[in-house]
Amino acid sequence: MSGVIGIYSKENKDISEIMYYGLYALQHRGEDSAGIAINNNGYIDYHKDLGLVQEVFGKDEINRLRGNIGVGHIRQSTVGGNTIANAEPLVVGYKKGALALACDGSLINFNELRDKMEDLGIIFQTSTDTEIIANLIAKYHKDDIEQAIINAVRDVKGAYALVAMTNDRLIGIRDPYGMKPLCIGKLGEKYVLASETCALDTIGAKFVRDVKPGEMVEIVNGKLKSIMTKEPEDKKICLFEIIYFARPDSKLDGRSIYLIRREAGRNLARECPQDGDIVISAPDSGTVAAIGYAEESGIPYDEGLIKNRYVGRTFIQPSQELREQGVRIKLNVLKENVEGRRVILVDDSIVRGTTMKRTVAMLKEAGAKEVHVRISAPPVIHSCNLGINTARGDNLIARGKTVEEIREAIGADSLCFLSLQGLIEAAGGEDIYCTGCFEGEYPF
Amino acid sequence: MSGVIGIYSKENKDISEIMYYGLYALQHRGEDSAGIAINNNGYIDYHKDLGLVQEVFGKDEINRLRGNIGVGHIRQSTVGGNTIANAEPLVVGYKKGALALACDGSLINFNELRDKMEDLGIIFQTSTDTEIIANLIAKYHKDDIEQAIINAVRDVKGAYALVAMTNDRLIGIRDPYGMKPLCIGKLGEKYVLASETCALDTIGAKFVRDVKPGEMVEIVNGKLKSIMTKEPEDKKICLFEIIYFARPDSKLDGRSIYLIRREAGRNLARECPQDGDIVISAPDSGTVAAIGYAEESGIPYDEGLIKNRYVGRTFIQPSQELREQGVRIKLNVLKENVEGRRVILVDDSIVRGTTMKRTVAMLKEAGAKEVHVRISAPPVIHSCNLGINTARGDNLIARGKTVEEIREAIGADSLCFLSLQGLIEAAGGEDIYCTGCFEGEYPF
Amino acid sequence: MSGVIGIYSKENKDISEIMYYGLYALQHRGEDSAGIAINNNGYIDYHKDLGLVQEVFGKDEINRLRGNIGVGHIRQSTVGGNTIANAEPLVVGYKKGALALACDGSLINFNELRDKMEDLGIIFQTSTDTEIIANLIAKYHKDDIEQAIINAVRDVKGAYALVAMTNDRLIGIRDPYGMKPLCIGKLGEKYVLASETCALDTIGAKFVRDVKPGEMVEIVNGKLKSIMTKEPEDKKICLFEIIYFARPDSKLDGRSIYLIRREAGRNLARECPQDGDIVISAPDSGTVAAIGYAEESGIPYDEGLIKNRYVGRTFIQPSQELREQGVRIKLNVLKENVEGRRVILVDDSIVRGTTMKRTVAMLKEAGAKEVHVRISAPPVIHSCNLGINTARGDNLIARGKTVEEIREAIGADSLCFLSLQGLIEAAGGEDIYCTGCFEGEYPF
Amino acid sequence: MSGVIGIYSKENKDISEIMYYGLYALQHRGEDSAGIAINNNGYIDYHKDLGLVQEVFGKDEINRLRGNIGVGHIRQSTVGGNTIANAEPLVVGYKKGALALACDGSLINFNELRDKMEDLGIIFQTSTDTEIIANLIAKYHKDDIEQAIINAVRDVKGAYALVAMTNDRLIGIRDPYGMKPLCIGKLGEKYVLASETCALDTIGAKFVRDVKPGEMVEIVNGKLKSIMTKEPEDKKICLFEIIYFARPDSKLDGRSIYLIRREAGRNLARECPQDGDIVISAPDSGTVAAIGYAEESGIPYDEGLIKNRYVGRTFIQPSQELREQGVRIKLNVLKENVEGRRVILVDDSIVRGTTMKRTVAMLKEAGAKEVHVRISAPPVIHSCNLGINTARGDNLIARGKTVEEIREAIGADSLCFLSLQGLIEAAGGEDIYCTGCFEGEYPF
Repeated sequence: MSGVIGIYSKENKDISEIMYYGLYALQHRGEDSAGIAINNNGYIDYHKDLGLVQEVFGKDEINRLRGNIGVGHIRQSTVGGNTIANAEPLVVGYKKGALALACDGSLINFNELRDKMEDLGIIFQTSTDTEIIANLIAKYHKDDIEQAIINAVRDVKGAYALVAMTNDRLIGIRDPYGMKPLCIGKLGEKYVLASETCALDTIGAKFVRDVKPGEMVEIVNGKLKSIMTKEPEDKKICLFEIIYFARPDSKLDGRSIYLIRREAGRNLARECPQDGDIVISAPDSGTVAAIGYAEESGIPYDEGLIKNRYVGRTFIQPSQELREQGVRIKLNVLKENVEGRRVILVDDSIVRGTTMKRTVAMLKEAGAKEVHVRISAPPVIHSCNLGINTARGDNLIARGKTVEEIREAIGADSLCFLSLQGLIEAAGGEDIYCTGCFEGEYPF
Repeated sequence: MSGVIGIYSKENKDISEIMYYGLYALQHRGEDSAGIAINNNGYIDYHKDLGLVQEVFGKDEINRLRGNIGVGHIRQSTVGGNTIANAEPLVVGYKKGALALACDGSLINFNELRDKMEDLGIIFQTSTDTEIIANLIAKYHKDDIEQAIINAVRDVKGAYALVAMTNDRLIGIRDPYGMKPLCIGKLGEKYVLASETCALDTIGAKFVRDVKPGEMVEIVNGKLKSIMTKEPEDKKICLFEIIYFARPDSKLDGRSIYLIRREAGRNLARECPQDGDIVISAPDSGTVAAIGYAEESGIPYDEGLIKNRYVGRTFIQPSQELREQGVRIKLNVLKENVEGRRVILVDDSIVRGTTMKRTVAMLKEAGAKEVHVRISAPPVIHSCNLGINTARGDNLIARGKTVEEIREAIGADSLCFLSLQGLIEAAGGEDIYCTGCFEGEYPF
Repeated sequence: MSGVIGIYSKENKDISEIMYYGLYALQHRGEDSAGIAINNNGYIDYHKDLGLVQEVFGKDEINRLRGNIGVGHIRQSTVGGNTIANAEPLVVGYKKGALALACDGSLINFNELRDKMEDLGIIFQTSTDTEIIANLIAKYHKDDIEQAIINAVRDVKGAYALVAMTNDRLIGIRDPYGMKPLCIGKLGEKYVLASETCALDTIGAKFVRDVKPGEMVEIVNGKLKSIMTKEPEDKKICLFEIIYFARPDSKLDGRSIYLIRREAGRNLARECPQDGDIVISAPDSGTVAAIGYAEESGIPYDEGLIKNRYVGRTFIQPSQELREQGVRIKLNVLKENVEGRRVILVDDSIVRGTTMKRTVAMLKEAGAKEVHVRISAPPVIHSCNLGINTARGDNLIARGKTVEEIREAIGADSLCFLSLQGLIEAAGGEDIYCTGCFEGEYPF
Repeated sequence: MSGVIGIYSKENKDISEIMYYGLYALQHRGEDSAGIAINNNGYIDYHKDLGLVQEVFGKDEINRLRGNIGVGHIRQSTVGGNTIANAEPLVVGYKKGALALACDGSLINFNELRDKMEDLGIIFQTSTDTEIIANLIAKYHKDDIEQAIINAVRDVKGAYALVAMTNDRLIGIRDPYGMKPLCIGKLGEKYVLASETCALDTIGAKFVRDVKPGEMVEIVNGKLKSIMTKEPEDKKICLFEIIYFARPDSKLDGRSIYLIRREAGRNLARECPQDGDIVISAPDSGTVAAIGYAEESGIPYDEGLIKNRYVGRTFIQPSQELREQGVRIKLNVLKENVEGRRVILVDDSIVRGTTMKRTVAMLKEAGAKEVHVRISAPPVIHSCNLGINTARGDNLIARGKTVEEIREAIGADSLCFLSLQGLIEAAGGEDIYCTGCFEGEYPF
């Protein structure tokens, strides 16, 4: 999981500060590393490091990174990959000069491509897909940059939203299935490309449109140009992006994440009705669906779990001993709202199940008469081959278990999942979604 | 504003890690400095610095601070006072040995006491009330420590919750009006004193009782002893503590902060009814009252403003230019929920009015048909002489303005405040609250 | 051991940058903490922390500390005292306003004074002599500041060079025995007070004169005024300051440290002649005496030990295992200069003896035929009651040992110390030196 | 300029701590970046960053980097190249697995090789020679690793000492001219490769021999194997390495750097005799030659300039204003040794001339009657095409100037350079040195 942003100022205004706030609006897409590369009169400078945007960038860095075209990146690493070498943007020199790449994506033919390249004697300094793409672009350097990038993305298979910068242009590309989001905005004379519309809102840019699946947009000489890199495939928008990753105030391909989640909550109330006294959410992921559930069911929505809003990356993890003594770093129960009551607890998904189990136990301990868990998506039973859902298959609590077995494992009085049909209907009803983690059928 | 904690392990267990998590649960009471002092076999060591708990303390510091009695402190500074010299606990040596003090409070006779002390040739290294109290305790060093502290607090006037540690005991004191909160918990064999019950919950401690107004509790030789320092006065619990500062999952003198805030929201709906399509909150401060308002009014509660949950201390502040261009660092509007609708926006207070004005404008810009502001407390028209509400009088938007004038200033279609009576009823109805900032009558 | 500096600009020029370079020239007087306090139009701001000058101060701190009067301090802690609380300048508020103190010194009636103050109910936040002095000044606050300081220093016994600042003046005081150095310089219109003349040279200031033993100089309204605080005693300049602490390019009370050390080396050659092939020094402390020894003896001076010039505070100390394997972090032998030769190794002192023992072994291992150790001062057999020489008596290798026994302990082929007479003659011959650590007779 | 080290433990002992001290002994070869890569059971981990060894590595990093084979690197950047991307070791993945490279060197066919590679579509993430070499090794991946490296170095032209590590072996290579130093040591069962013998001394390793020009040594399965990569050329040892870069306690190809420098000083006294009262050195670079000069001339050696030994990377540079006011950060004059005297000032080279000009002025200002500058090497008139001497040609004070003109430029009373013949004789007299910067004839 990553977030990307690109900004182009044709009037040659400095954009580093805006890049910073834009990246910051995408922080929820990854907390492991952050980076910005800026084109300063043909010279590309960059800064990237492990940490949150506000940890990686201080005033000194932002002041140094002056220029009118920039790309930025936020990363959430999979286990073991959180090294500074993997931080992006990747800035390389090749035949045609400098190239900066920021990519949110996952290539399924990564190993195949890397093997081929290694056969040719190519070396790798990271374990990122982005370095594969950079090598492909360089391979096609005899073509012009547009064609080189088109050739490169034709060689890859996978989900990606790629933002690229040369010394005179900004380019954005979305995979042919549209699995990864990428949108276009305008901020006065500036063009903006970003993973989510919330980044446009944050910097005051106006949403123009989404990049189309398979489309490459190029901003050069102050103008935006559109080129199709491949025949677009049937859209396969990632459902996990919608139910979990994206910020609720973003719109994805014209659909409000918030409205989809609330509608999923309503559908959940229809599919999984339950007598109860109070609807609460697992904060913050389940809040929107819980509001929808409450609305549809007529059972009042209220808060039952309070989150410490200072939970952060640099926090010292409690020792096993303290954990066993019941140290609750992130969540506290609002006893007065759950004691003696039949609680309907809504969340957006159960992946490993460990947090849900602890939450149910906490509610019971606080005196909840019953805890009914309602999930606004189907059980996750397949590990995503595109890296979206990073849990390995054997860690998925729902894999190979019946709903009743999962219920028992988490200690709830009842458990019910929204059907895939119910989720897709909430998301507009069209057959444009990847259902891989629920059904095992991936586009590749 | 500050938060305090003290822990005593009679079985001589190391408590530094628990101190850390306890302090962290009080982080909302102050983001400027943090500190822990620990008694390690009669030697008091400490670490304190500017920053959040997780910034001030790393593993190295926690590993160094070993011991079985400790006091901790979190501070929110008033303007100009945010220097490391003012960070607490204050650790001093005096006739009887070492003394560590952590104080949440404000003395109204600070100047008078400091003047007298200066006349006697006393020097000051901080501008804190705590240093005044330390000097008073030392002044009475010929008495035993209990009596010395009692004498000291008899000399001061003000609101305070004080936690003190010597090399063999932990002491907690609450002012005679009970303006500042302080509660007692047990964690196995350990005694815990904390500003709020949410700190007890976080570390897994059980709530025992609140320290009574005017009471001093002393844990020595493994036993808790209670001594009244003064005749208790009529309780004057700070209403701002209840409506704004305390965490909603805390209980203050037996009352759930959450339930009071929700009831205030309900009373607000009764006192200030309004036709509307949606009730939203100014996150996070207005959420509980908004839920109550929605419940009572029957108008659906939903989210209208999304907060970036990564907003932090170290964030680079946007330039004036970017602000004017509309950079929205903290809040984004959920356009789909407010566009074309009559929005009832609930918050807990309006102090300076600048944020509220910006929020109303943001909602209008997003297409809200009407924005009706409802505040779950009366207008704040007096600057607190106990330092709770740090705005100076002339910065208070409500000072000298009618409600209609305030409404105009913030650009809302209507504005209504909960009456003081309505707020006190929500808080239980008893005449036990300080209403100074609303009415101007302070205990002192 | 500490270093102090004070600067006063009557033309109201900003002095923070000059303070920085001045402090830096005194860095050899202490590596543990550094601090600067500056008077900015009557408000005293300061910054101090553990570390070297260049670690404690960055551009941000120097830019913040603007003003026209300042005091600075460098500290070398004794064991256990290296805490941030003890960093100076000490800045306090008292009856007459703000006061900043930086002191190089040691009071022998510290305990007595602190006990008396504690009896009066005074609290202490540090374990420094400076806090005692600050309390004394505050005690006499009814007198004007000059008289208050005079009264304060009359109450103390010990060695000190004190620099004090109020909101309108800079004051420097030297103890009546002149044990601690303090000199006056002028840098254009600015007055400078500093522990050593090398600080004047570094910032381009001209040496005016030394502060006299027992003298207080005060710069106020742009003029320097001199007041005697006490009858001056017979001078008792610290010999260890001369042979070890001071920088060789400093002049102390009119005497060049360099010339004294070289003359001591010459006297050593006269008193302790030795056949040999090469004279080498233990770098850097013995270099000047070695040059003198070579000159007088006619045996060529050359380098035999090379020091890694990057040795620093933050270096990871080698494990015991690595030490035993012969890791040599600081010094390497120049084998080609010592192999097969009779080496005369000159140093300024032997305190604990551990380093000398290791050095002799290193030379032998490199093939030195003989190693003759010559020390340009008498054996140190008394622990200084003024804190100059911080080794406790039982750690002194010379205590209770004959020269022959010491020789055996360090493994040298011969060992000879300069006589006290020889050292004093090198230093000018007058009876103006404290010989406490050599003879046990201290002024107090 | 760089320093390299490699260690191999056949007994599978952890070597990270030793690597640290070894690198630290090479710190004088570069202050810009430092890095260590360690092979931990086939997985290569590394840490590198900008800064000194003691700044880049703390206990945490050393504890993390566990393993039995390692390579380390120290870099001095040329202008503009001091970015973290250029820090080494370079760790890459390629067809045969992981490869870590640390290189001290400069390729003269860098541009040609990079151009060719870019033509093939290769991308570059750094601007180092090392990345070129890594690509060459990967290009030959079908050969075994020995042959691949041999092929790679056959493709490059330049001066280099390269240390390489795979998951099972350590390799060291020296260029066919032996321009860059590399030696072999043993520390118990461990093999050590290092740029200079002082690194062996520091970690307690015994010197075995120098790697021969053109030789590749490979330690695998606990045994050292030697392979010639090319026909060795006539040796062309860098004279600047000898007179300036190397530490005096190192031996280079059997010659003591110290003895060469002292002999150069003696020859200088013979070639450039001068009446004078004192011989002083420009510390620390001229010290050894000054000792030689004094010895040969019979004029006494003494110190005339004292260096502040805390000068470091992180020091705040003085403003232009302060410079003009005479702030002397690094050097102070020992007035008592130079006043009224005829001073012979010895240094090893004059490159830009700015420092020498300032030093002469400082001596004159301190009252030196005459200042005679003696340089223990010929004038540097050519910019090195191998990057050793980084000054560009037009910055060289000696370029296009007569000795008299240089003398005038630096303000000395006389100036004399050692002849090339005199320098080479000091270095043993053989025709094995590169004299490029003095004569313009480079091997390439």
